[in-house]
Amino acid sequence: MRIAIASDHAAFDLKAVLSAWLSGDGHDVIDLGPSGTDRVDYPDYGYKLAEAVASGKAARGIALCGSGIGISIAVNRHPAMRCALVGEPYSAMLAREHNDANVIALGARLTGEDMAKACIAAFLVAEFAGGRHAGRIDKLSHPQFEELSA
Amino acid sequence: MRIAIASDHAAFDLKAVLSAWLSGDGHDVIDLGPSGTDRVDYPDYGYKLAEAVASGKAARGIALCGSGIGISIAVNRHPAMRCALVGEPYSAMLAREHNDANVIALGARLTGEDMAKACIAAFLVAEFAGGRHAGRIDKLSHPQFEELSA
Repeated sequence: MRIAIASDHAAFDLKAVLSAWLSGDGHDVIDLGPSGTDRVDYPDYGYKLAEAVASGKAARGIALCGSGIGISIAVNRHPAMRCALVGEPYSAMLAREHNDANVIALGARLTGEDMAKACIAAFLVAEFAGGRHAGRIDKLSHPQFEELSA
Repeated sequence: MRIAIASDHAAFDLKAVLSAWLSGDGHDVIDLGPSGTDRVDYPDYGYKLAEAVASGKAARGIALCGSGIGISIAVNRHPAMRCALVGEPYSAMLAREHNDANVIALGARLTGEDMAKACIAAFLVAEFAGGRHAGRIDKLSHPQFEELSA
């Protein structure tokens, strides 16, 4: 599978570990940066990742920052993204089954390497259940805010 | 503090428990629904919550669904929202300190009542650290996607 991965400086090392692991497993990994541990702003990399997945350059995305919180917010600014911040594999599976998540976010300072791999493995193998969940996904693609459209 | 709370049907019971607890603690709780356990779509309630917090009707928001994933995505569609999906208090604290989170999301099927209360308590007491984090928050308020602005 073609998988895009992006982080901030705090998650640079985890990004390297996960990229090597995914490549070794036969996936085509697109590393969107950063390329080192100099301080960067997680929204820049979250937006890049959202565009890579939305455009179809990647089928799935992996978003990493210190807690996973900041970059998950950034990715979800894009109406075509459904990014789930998770810390264990059950949530990663639910994110696919119920929410058709196309991006998973992990916190490098909170979730260890092996747990991160277990989350990603669950995320990559689980399938969207469709059915009653599909209408909700459609609503996530067309957010309606009264004061923003006024 | 004036706190808005919203859920889906799966988290209706947790919403009732948390609302009563917050009211008993002296907070002014705005319950945005649903008012029962009939099936609803979490995006509708996530969008309502985002508007209540963005408009200033509430200072903070609490978003609940089965896993917390779906409603956290919905809330974060609004550029003024910074919604952190958490399952333990340390993340709830970091969400305030680093991300100036104004909404916390919890999964009613994954996080027990006492842990949910501990997360909310940490979220309500922690303060934004500002400094280097402020520029990143500003970027979250002004998402830039090339293909959407084209």
